Amino acid sequence: MHRRWLRWLPLLRWLPSYQREDFARDLLAGVLVSVLLVPQAVAYALLAGLPAHTGLYAALLPLVAYALFGSSPVLAVGPVAVISLMTAATIGSLGLEEPQLRVAAAAALAVLTGAVLLAMALLRLGVIVRFISHPVLNGFLAAAAVLIMLSQVPVLFGLPPADGGAWQQLIRLPVEVPRVHAPTMVLGAFSLVMLALMSLYGARLLVACGTPEPAARLLAQLAPLAVLVLAALAAAHWSAGIAVVGSVPEGLPALSLPAPDMALWRQLLPAAVLIALVGFVESVSVAQALAARRRSRIEPERELIGTGAANLAAGVSGGFPVAGGLSRSALNFQVGAATPLAGVVTAGCIALVLLFLSPLLAWLPRAAVAAVIVMAAASLVDWRAMLAAWRYNRADGLCMAVTLVTVLAVGIEAGILAGAGLSLALFLWRTSRPHIAVVGRVPGTEHYRNIRRHEVQTSARVLAVRVDESLYFANTRFLEDRLLSEVAARPDLQHLVLVCSAVNDIDASALETLTRLTYGLADAGVTLHLAEVKGPVMDRLQRVDFAGTLGKGRIFLSTHSAMQSLERSD
Amino acid sequence: MHRRWLRWLPLLRWLPSYQREDFARDLLAGVLVSVLLVPQAVAYALLAGLPAHTGLYAALLPLVAYALFGSSPVLAVGPVAVISLMTAATIGSLGLEEPQLRVAAAAALAVLTGAVLLAMALLRLGVIVRFISHPVLNGFLAAAAVLIMLSQVPVLFGLPPADGGAWQQLIRLPVEVPRVHAPTMVLGAFSLVMLALMSLYGARLLVACGTPEPAARLLAQLAPLAVLVLAALAAAHWSAGIAVVGSVPEGLPALSLPAPDMALWRQLLPAAVLIALVGFVESVSVAQALAARRRSRIEPERELIGTGAANLAAGVSGGFPVAGGLSRSALNFQVGAATPLAGVVTAGCIALVLLFLSPLLAWLPRAAVAAVIVMAAASLVDWRAMLAAWRYNRADGLCMAVTLVTVLAVGIEAGILAGAGLSLALFLWRTSRPHIAVVGRVPGTEHYRNIRRHEVQTSARVLAVRVDESLYFANTRFLEDRLLSEVAARPDLQHLVLVCSAVNDIDASALETLTRLTYGLADAGVTLHLAEVKGPVMDRLQRVDFAGTLGKGRIFLSTHSAMQSLERSD
Repeated sequence: MHRRWLRWLPLLRWLPSYQREDFARDLLAGVLVSVLLVPQAVAYALLAGLPAHTGLYAALLPLVAYALFGSSPVLAVGPVAVISLMTAATIGSLGLEEPQLRVAAAAALAVLTGAVLLAMALLRLGVIVRFISHPVLNGFLAAAAVLIMLSQVPVLFGLPPADGGAWQQLIRLPVEVPRVHAPTMVLGAFSLVMLALMSLYGARLLVACGTPEPAARLLAQLAPLAVLVLAALAAAHWSAGIAVVGSVPEGLPALSLPAPDMALWRQLLPAAVLIALVGFVESVSVAQALAARRRSRIEPERELIGTGAANLAAGVSGGFPVAGGLSRSALNFQVGAATPLAGVVTAGCIALVLLFLSPLLAWLPRAAVAAVIVMAAASLVDWRAMLAAWRYNRADGLCMAVTLVTVLAVGIEAGILAGAGLSLALFLWRTSRPHIAVVGRVPGTEHYRNIRRHEVQTSARVLAVRVDESLYFANTRFLEDRLLSEVAARPDLQHLVLVCSAVNDIDASALETLTRLTYGLADAGVTLHLAEVKGPVMDRLQRVDFAGTLGKGRIFLSTHSAMQSLERSD
Repeated sequence: MHRRWLRWLPLLRWLPSYQREDFARDLLAGVLVSVLLVPQAVAYALLAGLPAHTGLYAALLPLVAYALFGSSPVLAVGPVAVISLMTAATIGSLGLEEPQLRVAAAAALAVLTGAVLLAMALLRLGVIVRFISHPVLNGFLAAAAVLIMLSQVPVLFGLPPADGGAWQQLIRLPVEVPRVHAPTMVLGAFSLVMLALMSLYGARLLVACGTPEPAARLLAQLAPLAVLVLAALAAAHWSAGIAVVGSVPEGLPALSLPAPDMALWRQLLPAAVLIALVGFVESVSVAQALAARRRSRIEPERELIGTGAANLAAGVSGGFPVAGGLSRSALNFQVGAATPLAGVVTAGCIALVLLFLSPLLAWLPRAAVAAVIVMAAASLVDWRAMLAAWRYNRADGLCMAVTLVTVLAVGIEAGILAGAGLSLALFLWRTSRPHIAVVGRVPGTEHYRNIRRHEVQTSARVLAVRVDESLYFANTRFLEDRLLSEVAARPDLQHLVLVCSAVNDIDASALETLTRLTYGLADAGVTLHLAEVKGPVMDRLQRVDFAGTLGKGRIFLSTHSAMQSLERSD
């Protein structure tokens, strides 16, 4: 019973042994993260096409819920750029005019996302995310960054929001030049430049000013708040029609379940599934990377429950879908958050902001917030990984490019599905055409190597072929074809040795093919042998008495013993 | 130019060197195959729900077309049981009452099937068939056999044909008992028993009567014709209302293109794709198995053209979809057909039957033909392979069972898709959870083995882990998780050696994971090393300077040198 509780409520593991010094670390981390979180929460709410306060709501209860159910001490859940973009696309497709209806739909989407994540945990479907490869994810994130930046173009230029997709925003720009609001544009450009400079040189500047290096790196990350405050002061000073965030309701969010609107839920469900998948992939990647650096690990199944609970909490408190954010989690890690209580501290700070500082938030200029969004989007693009994937492997590069182009040209769902499908198809294609090498003996040794790569000795009567892949239904015909053509090219051949050192599995189709090959080759006067069969594969072959099927053929421990024995035989 | 012709018209390869003795062999094989083919052609036409003569039409021109374009000297194309069943299901679903319309629709289906096969040849899509595994094919054939037998139940009992699927035929049987036509039932039972006995003991009986063994085995295969002749004589003698095949038009088929009915074609296309796939899989399996026994091989891409041309020929000459048949091809092989000319001889014999013997075919009792169909269906079920697959590997057994049950319960298309999809999903699932073993040194040797299977020496400071699968996006997270948990369990660990002897590929996702692991482990004070990396994998790792990424970590040639060197270090 006790173990079961441990399984579902990880906080029972760390709370009993909680110590004073843990709290000191959690407090510092929690406060610093909230400084980074407030501007991000407002920014991502606007990115999602929702009122600013919903971002703070989405950063309050979800943090507490994750602290109760999640497994990572440093993962900071809350609004993140990609999920906000997906939320904006989903809510936008509903065609709701009333802001209240949009807020309600976003809350319903969060509840559905949470339900999907919990259902995945119950059905142990967390493994699905394994099938989204890194290049597909990188391609998707790069495309999402482009879409996010495009969505902020009108805000940065002080243009009124307009209908149409991301590309329409760009296309109408030249036409709209006369309507550009110059002070807004100046403020937006100033914020962007400031943020870029702070991100590139901020830490170095602070070190030059005498700040110790770790502290300098921390402070540089808190630049967005500074820029927003400066921009707000500037806007208040000029007050020349610069669009601001506008009134933010004071106080904590009211709890309420979303109205049971089946038609709406059915419309939202596909998006909720995709948001759950993408959010979960991001959260697990972040949490796992940070855990590895502390020589610990996270439990992906538990993360499903943690992020699922966080999304439910966001939904019932007027927020929108959330996930684990990279920059805030990294900050948590840097400062040294000891337990999930750091998240509770952050939530407390957000509550204080909601209770006492929300009037100030109303003065934030939208263009400056847009600059924060653009900078966050830019950090989503991992150029190095994308270039590396492209150089390393054309198949991976292709999947990345297809995902990127499809997301930009068709949409987010189509892009992810196309990328994931293509990467699976290419994997199957690759394994269906395995590398097969005729091997010969390196003179004077017991080593056997590819005759195309090395100077080796071969025999006209005995042929050794190594196949570098597990044998399964999709490559068994390819293997058969290749072996038969090697045999057909050697009229004096008497023995064919299949070297299985890289064969990790032989399925029933491959077994049937090997059996057919054995009989077919026997009719043609060639005996089939195996060599270097692995333990687990051998166990299974013995179960069906494959040695009996081989007849005169044998299963040798090593290629060398096979060649020695067969060349010596008459 | 000349080579190109060789590629498209294989007959240019064998015709110039054709010799007299080749013709003797082709003549004998061609005539014997036609003796087997005539009853089968009539039977499969009735199985397809079409008039008897369409079966002969489908056996005439397609043989000539295949002789021109196919690559196998022994593959005998023409009507086959499974394709006829699929044709029956397709034509039946159109709800056509007029026999002429059904014949026209079947011809259109054959043309479409041929077009699909030729399109697959052009687009080099022949590889698709690799993804239909043997267990899926066996499960499908077993289910098809059941459906074929069920469809013949009313005919064997002399009941009028009725609407409804295969199962309805069985369910209504008890109700229909009073209407059973006793003489038909007796004739059907007699034919079935005779065929079964001939197939089981015929060859032995003939040997006992003094026939040489090869001839006896040949003759026993021709039993269907003998049984049909006996049954026809019996039916003519009694003539007690026993249903017969009925008038067969004399003369050769007229050539005509199917009417351009786009609505019909669109309805038929999905079925044509599936018939093309199944027919191609069957033809290639048969041709490849027989080629292996002669130490030669077939070219699967050419088979697409050969069977595609055969289907086009069937369509323009009033036939229905065709494929390579197992029993007739095996007979061809046994008798020793030397070239595709044997097929032309068979076609000549069919032409003679159509010209001079068709009045006699009219007297064949339908019940006896149904007995021939049931026996042919029984031979589709490969109990041994099915049991072996089940025993050998639960995943393969499951795919087989799912295909079988889905074909029987839902339909042919759903069954094949479910089976193929499931086998791919299970393959991905298997490779996504690779076998990972901590290895230790077998005392006194340079061999390293799984610590769970062998008594081996390990070190607290150096850990060697072998992963038995290529590293790709679907298993990279599993690997990372496993490695981190092994590291987390060993507080004194300083070096982790990943043994890559069974890693045939490392994709971009896996590379990224390895990079992240390297940095993460380095932060935790553990250095990652690789050992036994294969040539092609190493080439690619060098392209992105992975050795540089490893930092202090090294890439060792063997596990032994890694362990020696690392245990000796500080």
